[in-house]
Amino acid sequence: MDEAALQELLGDVRSGEVDLDDAVSRLRRLPFADLGFARVDHHRALRQGVAEAVFGPGKTPPQCAAIVAELLAAPGGPVILTRAGPEQIDAALAAAPGGAVVGATVVWRPAAARTDPVAVLAAGTADRPVADECVATLAAYGFGATRLDDVGVAGLHRLLADVDVVTDARAVVVIAGMDGALASVVGGISGAPVVAVPTSAGYGAAFEGVTALLSMLASCAAGISVVGIDNGFGAACAVARILGVGAAPHG
Amino acid sequence: MDEAALQELLGDVRSGEVDLDDAVSRLRRLPFADLGFARVDHHRALRQGVAEAVFGPGKTPPQCAAIVAELLAAPGGPVILTRAGPEQIDAALAAAPGGAVVGATVVWRPAAARTDPVAVLAAGTADRPVADECVATLAAYGFGATRLDDVGVAGLHRLLADVDVVTDARAVVVIAGMDGALASVVGGISGAPVVAVPTSAGYGAAFEGVTALLSMLASCAAGISVVGIDNGFGAACAVARILGVGAAPHG
Amino acid sequence: MDEAALQELLGDVRSGEVDLDDAVSRLRRLPFADLGFARVDHHRALRQGVAEAVFGPGKTPPQCAAIVAELLAAPGGPVILTRAGPEQIDAALAAAPGGAVVGATVVWRPAAARTDPVAVLAAGTADRPVADECVATLAAYGFGATRLDDVGVAGLHRLLADVDVVTDARAVVVIAGMDGALASVVGGISGAPVVAVPTSAGYGAAFEGVTALLSMLASCAAGISVVGIDNGFGAACAVARILGVGAAPHG
Amino acid sequence: MDEAALQELLGDVRSGEVDLDDAVSRLRRLPFADLGFARVDHHRALRQGVAEAVFGPGKTPPQCAAIVAELLAAPGGPVILTRAGPEQIDAALAAAPGGAVVGATVVWRPAAARTDPVAVLAAGTADRPVADECVATLAAYGFGATRLDDVGVAGLHRLLADVDVVTDARAVVVIAGMDGALASVVGGISGAPVVAVPTSAGYGAAFEGVTALLSMLASCAAGISVVGIDNGFGAACAVARILGVGAAPHG
Amino acid sequence: MDEAALQELLGDVRSGEVDLDDAVSRLRRLPFADLGFARVDHHRALRQGVAEAVFGPGKTPPQCAAIVAELLAAPGGPVILTRAGPEQIDAALAAAPGGAVVGATVVWRPAAARTDPVAVLAAGTADRPVADECVATLAAYGFGATRLDDVGVAGLHRLLADVDVVTDARAVVVIAGMDGALASVVGGISGAPVVAVPTSAGYGAAFEGVTALLSMLASCAAGISVVGIDNGFGAACAVARILGVGAAPHG
Amino acid sequence: MDEAALQELLGDVRSGEVDLDDAVSRLRRLPFADLGFARVDHHRALRQGVAEAVFGPGKTPPQCAAIVAELLAAPGGPVILTRAGPEQIDAALAAAPGGAVVGATVVWRPAAARTDPVAVLAAGTADRPVADECVATLAAYGFGATRLDDVGVAGLHRLLADVDVVTDARAVVVIAGMDGALASVVGGISGAPVVAVPTSAGYGAAFEGVTALLSMLASCAAGISVVGIDNGFGAACAVARILGVGAAPHG
Amino acid sequence: MDEAALQELLGDVRSGEVDLDDAVSRLRRLPFADLGFARVDHHRALRQGVAEAVFGPGKTPPQCAAIVAELLAAPGGPVILTRAGPEQIDAALAAAPGGAVVGATVVWRPAAARTDPVAVLAAGTADRPVADECVATLAAYGFGATRLDDVGVAGLHRLLADVDVVTDARAVVVIAGMDGALASVVGGISGAPVVAVPTSAGYGAAFEGVTALLSMLASCAAGISVVGIDNGFGAACAVARILGVGAAPHG
Amino acid sequence: MDEAALQELLGDVRSGEVDLDDAVSRLRRLPFADLGFARVDHHRALRQGVAEAVFGPGKTPPQCAAIVAELLAAPGGPVILTRAGPEQIDAALAAAPGGAVVGATVVWRPAAARTDPVAVLAAGTADRPVADECVATLAAYGFGATRLDDVGVAGLHRLLADVDVVTDARAVVVIAGMDGALASVVGGISGAPVVAVPTSAGYGAAFEGVTALLSMLASCAAGISVVGIDNGFGAACAVARILGVGAAPHG
Repeated sequence: MDEAALQELLGDVRSGEVDLDDAVSRLRRLPFADLGFARVDHHRALRQGVAEAVFGPGKTPPQCAAIVAELLAAPGGPVILTRAGPEQIDAALAAAPGGAVVGATVVWRPAAARTDPVAVLAAGTADRPVADECVATLAAYGFGATRLDDVGVAGLHRLLADVDVVTDARAVVVIAGMDGALASVVGGISGAPVVAVPTSAGYGAAFEGVTALLSMLASCAAGISVVGIDNGFGAACAVARILGVGAAPHG
Repeated sequence: MDEAALQELLGDVRSGEVDLDDAVSRLRRLPFADLGFARVDHHRALRQGVAEAVFGPGKTPPQCAAIVAELLAAPGGPVILTRAGPEQIDAALAAAPGGAVVGATVVWRPAAARTDPVAVLAAGTADRPVADECVATLAAYGFGATRLDDVGVAGLHRLLADVDVVTDARAVVVIAGMDGALASVVGGISGAPVVAVPTSAGYGAAFEGVTALLSMLASCAAGISVVGIDNGFGAACAVARILGVGAAPHG
Repeated sequence: MDEAALQELLGDVRSGEVDLDDAVSRLRRLPFADLGFARVDHHRALRQGVAEAVFGPGKTPPQCAAIVAELLAAPGGPVILTRAGPEQIDAALAAAPGGAVVGATVVWRPAAARTDPVAVLAAGTADRPVADECVATLAAYGFGATRLDDVGVAGLHRLLADVDVVTDARAVVVIAGMDGALASVVGGISGAPVVAVPTSAGYGAAFEGVTALLSMLASCAAGISVVGIDNGFGAACAVARILGVGAAPHG
Repeated sequence: MDEAALQELLGDVRSGEVDLDDAVSRLRRLPFADLGFARVDHHRALRQGVAEAVFGPGKTPPQCAAIVAELLAAPGGPVILTRAGPEQIDAALAAAPGGAVVGATVVWRPAAARTDPVAVLAAGTADRPVADECVATLAAYGFGATRLDDVGVAGLHRLLADVDVVTDARAVVVIAGMDGALASVVGGISGAPVVAVPTSAGYGAAFEGVTALLSMLASCAAGISVVGIDNGFGAACAVARILGVGAAPHG
Repeated sequence: MDEAALQELLGDVRSGEVDLDDAVSRLRRLPFADLGFARVDHHRALRQGVAEAVFGPGKTPPQCAAIVAELLAAPGGPVILTRAGPEQIDAALAAAPGGAVVGATVVWRPAAARTDPVAVLAAGTADRPVADECVATLAAYGFGATRLDDVGVAGLHRLLADVDVVTDARAVVVIAGMDGALASVVGGISGAPVVAVPTSAGYGAAFEGVTALLSMLASCAAGISVVGIDNGFGAACAVARILGVGAAPHG
Repeated sequence: MDEAALQELLGDVRSGEVDLDDAVSRLRRLPFADLGFARVDHHRALRQGVAEAVFGPGKTPPQCAAIVAELLAAPGGPVILTRAGPEQIDAALAAAPGGAVVGATVVWRPAAARTDPVAVLAAGTADRPVADECVATLAAYGFGATRLDDVGVAGLHRLLADVDVVTDARAVVVIAGMDGALASVVGGISGAPVVAVPTSAGYGAAFEGVTALLSMLASCAAGISVVGIDNGFGAACAVARILGVGAAPHG
Repeated sequence: MDEAALQELLGDVRSGEVDLDDAVSRLRRLPFADLGFARVDHHRALRQGVAEAVFGPGKTPPQCAAIVAELLAAPGGPVILTRAGPEQIDAALAAAPGGAVVGATVVWRPAAARTDPVAVLAAGTADRPVADECVATLAAYGFGATRLDDVGVAGLHRLLADVDVVTDARAVVVIAGMDGALASVVGGISGAPVVAVPTSAGYGAAFEGVTALLSMLASCAAGISVVGIDNGFGAACAVARILGVGAAPHG
Repeated sequence: MDEAALQELLGDVRSGEVDLDDAVSRLRRLPFADLGFARVDHHRALRQGVAEAVFGPGKTPPQCAAIVAELLAAPGGPVILTRAGPEQIDAALAAAPGGAVVGATVVWRPAAARTDPVAVLAAGTADRPVADECVATLAAYGFGATRLDDVGVAGLHRLLADVDVVTDARAVVVIAGMDGALASVVGGISGAPVVAVPTSAGYGAAFEGVTALLSMLASCAAGISVVGIDNGFGAACAVARILGVGAAPHG
């Protein structure tokens, strides 16, 4: 319910078409669908410009399927199912055919393709599932990210070989576990927005991603921002915000 | 030393004007000035598009003054002294007159004014020093941020009264201690990039900002990214990256 | 053994009906039944007004069954089996038919129905098992809680649609993982007692509920109180205390 | 702005007395006063039924004074200044005479006296400042709490001597540092609501209150709820919610 | 090699029976048997008066069996296998018949029975496995501990019913998870040595025993000492030290 | 109020000398003195056999003096003032002359001298204040501990030079910061009870004593027990319990 | 690409054999092979002198096999597969026969044997897998380490029996869980470099190796350095660095 | 007491010159001087080859002076006073003239100069005090380290300008706070031993050095080892061990 709709409602009040009690009630009610076990938000895309995502863990396959179908039943933007197991994916695709599956992520109704160059860098091969989630989510928003895997700082020349990918990007996602040092190095060679994603990959003193998380937050390269551990989805959403997906209505 | 300079150097090698040994040596050397106690980086602005900042704590007033003066001696972008005490500020201003002082931050040679709307929200009055640092740093980059103080979620209507500031912004900085819940609320009503800054303000179970930091990282509003505790400077740099300060050479 | 019983005992001592040594001994002994592996407390309901609960984990199915049966053998209030697996539930129901099963909770001999309006809010679908435990425990005390699922702050209008449930309640339980921000928001719109339950649901920086726990404890909405992670049972008991279950003898 | 006011506004829209644009604007605006450095909330008492509190740390004495004066300028409920230093207290009293000072807390315009029995227990003498804050805040709400100091579990008989205070109370606040065990003991002998406040008092392995906080959250006595470390103010607010201060309009 | 043996060796040196190089070498060598994968210590009982224990986890069943057999092959005191799985127990008993099995603990060659009264208290039924390990280890040292299960502070009268067990004991082991409050209560009613064992049993905010550990270390009852989480074996060894098992040679 | 007193009271009830209501009341009241700000426990020494201690921090000098004087006014055992500053000590000595001052500890009315050999070992010179507190508290109980300072494991021969002190002791207190390794080494060469006290002394990764605390709790020498950081007083009380101070009435 | 190659490239630029653009491009490119899912670094051995290692977890067996084969396809030093499961090992050996398997480690193309004495000490039998990884990695570098298992400080004589191994070594690796005290003891008797490896073995308060990690970092024996938990591979690499594997080109 | 001395003692026993009891006693006694408050170790240099260091904090100036003087009174190696305040330094120099003061470190009787190239890198100017301590300690061992200040990864070219210092070194100490990323970068370009020192310098999420500590321990560059936070002294000792100071007697 945007400002125009609010004015219309108040106009209806003035003209008497809408009863006072009813108006009070509607002023508090924005569109969503109540499935009993979930309240599906048809309003979020309008409000935030972000895709509607269904987080898999803790939901039954039928619940996943029902929420996805409900979201697709109304007009709107991309719908994403994340961290889904095979049974959840199967159920969702049966209810809503046509989703594109990448790893544990499924995307329906992706946004129109955009040309902004986005780079997604993963430090090690163990960070690939997080990069998969990030790239799939970016694709839902219409971004065809350029991806560099296995470019950790222990062999900086591997990054330097494709350094154009970094310097040309309008936004860079850096995904790393262990010491998370890749974020600082990328932040030092690029002036673009850098969104850092710590991963739970690693051993020794990686502490399930806490070390990389802290290291990225304390990066000596100014202006890096950070999302939660293994949160490739969140990083992609941050990029979508940065590149103006949500700002379109503003002009 | 950008790509053009590299080509020129290699041209000089081909023409024989530069000796091979010398070229090898110069290829490894980018411009900075060695003051003995610090290596002042004249290259960072070119490389990253970010301002050069001098972090006050741990430096003597003369060291602060010398670094600032050295940075201003070469052409370049904004110069910022952060977290400075009165003696550091006095010494720096004596050596480099004309700096604009806001709280513990001093800015010299600010960038040309820009019109992108940026919002800086602080949840409580105790978060104001962090907001000061953020707004002053944004000013160094040319952004005249709109600032809303004391708009924490315990009285949401205070935020809603100025909600246009949030919905119109191209980037929003949210500064909050305690539960950091303001970040989630703002992320839910705006599709613009949201950079969250946890602060060490608070009591009870605020744990010097750790609670707000964790809460912001775990925000249920997708696409929020976070910087370190009390790091208003870093948040401003992230905004500068987002709004293309560093990307200008690419465009 | 309440004050009346103590007076009676002492009267028996004066009259000589009870021997001194015996009285000393009885003064130290309050009613419970020793099953060998557990000491079943027949006194707690009198003393605290709270239901007697059997915590499933770590007990064999026969032990669960025996404790439940012992509790029901004596007159008293509600008996609750929590966090029980299917085998524990089967064994307990075989020994004590008639229990009402909700998720992993079983309730026997519920208290008489009460009319106090109680609201139980869960931020996400993954928080539902905790809400189940809370609602089932409230039912044991006679409260028919109104439950709102999936009303997290990322889509505040979902909460606002049913805001009457919150504003009309005499006590509100808020169940949330991730950033736990729902507790602050509810605390800001309701003057009723708010009992916050952090949950282990979440990812990124949720840290198994620790983030939500800290965030709720540091809530900027004054007067919120918190129980342990996933402790829907404890929150229900807190509500029972608040609404005077235990205070009845005093009134 | 409660529901009645909302209806009135809409009635004015219907009758044409209020312009549409103006109504849209007013619907987003609830009463507060913008002092520049703070947004003073005249609405919170109506909305939540809780007192308006000014948290001292980080504010200058003139800021404290101005906020207190602004709050008292409008009709309303109690006004509380907490954790204030001597200069803050002096400035506030100069601007707003008549406040009652207890330790670091000042109360103006207390609510009418209430008769609900409330008990405030402090385990050790070092916990007294927290008890002071709690008792002063309760007084602002009209409650004359009965206070028991120095009743830690190392000498349980000290508590038992005044056990009537506990068993007669409609709400009990338990304040303890170190192992926080007093909360469990009180929870075991009382069926009333127990709000536990961990304190930073202690040594050895008290860890600035973290040990007591965890211990209280993990209390084996069901239905205890907990607020932040040293948060006597928060506990008093929780009691005010429990005893229906905020629920009055609903009743 | 005790002081007498050292004197004898030196006498042999003086008399020429032992070569100098050999004596130097022997002075560095105390008796143990090298099994390749383990160095079995035949000296520890002499040196410390404590039983020789084999910790099961991480060892193959044949390794467990071999170490137990080697220990029993030499004269000495009790031999204990702890935290052993069924296959480890079977293998050990096959190699060394006659061990007494209690839960996951097996004891061979127990010390002669002693009459010192020792109490082992467990707060909840989930703490029983730790109590089993403790009681079995005490039995290896000859102590027939009196055990009280399910005597947590939520129902103090269950403890008080058998309070003689506590007040008569020469040493008390208190085993508790959750808030660990039982240790403080027992420490307050007994002047005997209290060894507290936190357990990993619990939920909510028990954090795998960390809460109980901290709570016990910060106990407000002076003179309580603590061992590691779930370490019933260690607590029994502490009691053995306290009651003079190791001090016998000195007396 | 011991068992004899209880019998006498009940006898008075039977004979009619004591009224029923009065008996009920007295049964709940054990001896202590209420000073307003503190409840001085005259019963603890009888009940636990431990000295009555006054913890200095957070108390005013007059409060320290009043509590000490009250404790000395009644017959009883040792009285100890710990962690006291110079002003607290002066005030206490003015009110109660004759106390023996050792560092920040003052002892009045020490117990009769005992001959049990007790060893107190401190790893480094920075651990000496904790050792002072421990030795002074032991002196209050009548133990003249043998003290070894600066015997850390980096130079084990310094310990070995006085190893008789360790092997002859009936109880050993080991005080160490940093890695706390001295506790394991002492536990390996002595069969006596070992009470380990981690200290906050250290640097690098000592973390204010947490490292030593964890290391001591995880000691590979079985049967070591641990008290809180810097808690020399608690360790001395543990030794007093071990050596039967509290058990005397039972023997 | 070492300095010589760089000079050759620049000579080609001068002579015109290499185009400027091409040179710029090549200056950024160092040798590695891009397998799509991994960037295999043929340069690291030259650059660092350390072996190329493939970390098993998170890679499919075919991926492990492909990376190992690629590394062996180019000339170079040792290739190591670590933390590999049986299927990964089988696949790797099928693709690259001849690897030496020790536990979960496989080594191909080991360096020539070296004679520097290296000692690897493991405190307990549960630390053996970490020692296996360390010894196998050392073997890849050509070192035939002398290994002492089960020499924890609870029975120091077991270490002293083979003390020559320690005192003769040019580098010592100390592997221990629990309290990690062995590192301090070894550091006190040897002047050689000591690399400490905390292990996750243990119970009670071992906290998955964190206690040993902290204890080793805070060792009171100066000059000990530490690697991550269970990181036997890293410790071996540190020894290789220390003994000059990587320094060969310099000397 | 080395092996030769031990043989001599035993020879004296054989010849009857030394009494048996006396020999037993002396075998346990290695040389140190007991100053009452400290046991000065004259043996450590022989035993470990490391310098004898006096840690300032917690010692009075006279104590510092006395320990230093005692150490210098016997022949031996370097003597170092660390973390000393001005008064401690003055007292020590008065008692033992000729010490070389660098920041808070004083060195007497330094070892003969050595030519091994050692590099000490500090990431920021705030890390300089730690570098001072490290360089001064290295000087005590005879090493004239080459020092690079302010070479953090945010401006890698500053490091690359002096990369020869790193590649030529036989050992590299890397000192960094914040994200500690410099250690990984140096480890990637050098094959020499890298000893990493996290510092407490920093802000945002540096957490007093914990972030850098974890990051360095989890470095993706293999073979880096780490010492405690701010422990420049320990890093220098590790280098001394690595470069054979302590191994000289063995060679």
